[in-house]
Amino acid sequence: MKGEHFFNLHDMTQGIARTLSEGLETRIFPGENVMLSVVRIAANRAGEIHSHPQEQWGVLLEGGGVRIQAGVEHEVTPGDFWQTPGNVPHGFRAGSEGAVVLDIFSPPREEYRRAGSGYGG
Amino acid sequence: MKGEHFFNLHDMTQGIARTLSEGLETRIFPGENVMLSVVRIAANRAGEIHSHPQEQWGVLLEGGGVRIQAGVEHEVTPGDFWQTPGNVPHGFRAGSEGAVVLDIFSPPREEYRRAGSGYGG
Repeated sequence: MKGEHFFNLHDMTQGIARTLSEGLETRIFPGENVMLSVVRIAANRAGEIHSHPQEQWGVLLEGGGVRIQAGVEHEVTPGDFWQTPGNVPHGFRAGSEGAVVLDIFSPPREEYRRAGSGYGG
Repeated sequence: MKGEHFFNLHDMTQGIARTLSEGLETRIFPGENVMLSVVRIAANRAGEIHSHPQEQWGVLLEGGGVRIQAGVEHEVTPGDFWQTPGNVPHGFRAGSEGAVVLDIFSPPREEYRRAGSGYGG
């Protein structure tokens, strides 16, 4: 414990737990203008294509897979990051290693401020 | 090149170049509501303590050092991340390996939309 504003990407006891869909587990950290979400995707699992008005950025921290955005598939490896403007349909399909993605939302997704399941919206 | 909204943390040809101070080089990626900044801090270098009204989050991607926030020193290792509410004084001092930090601002820092030097504000 380093202080109230300090966290670790690998500490699954922190943040608000949400299961997006089977094999996609996330821990959510709400701020005032930004919400961070550490998403763990099991090997070969895919999230459903969805959209929301909030701007989103994603950073591939570990593993690999395919980012689907505006109908185009982009193969991504660790260190790749991307911007998803509001209302652009998107999803992610993990490869054989699974994937850990840091998602950044602004403004925060209000429906993600409480534990639960699904993509909301 | 994966598409106009796709980038890589390690590609120093992308983003808007800014030198925060000697030994602190950053590449800045402005969005609509969020601005990302990949900051590379040379070994044993420190940025000056400063503040700004924008909310900021930081993620330590590589290396190590000390995050100074609201006058308190927090030793950080890769995977640690933190929220810095607006107007809270903060800075970073890299250890002997240097550090790579992903900074997230919301709203974007307007003065960082163009190449330059210094912390702005």
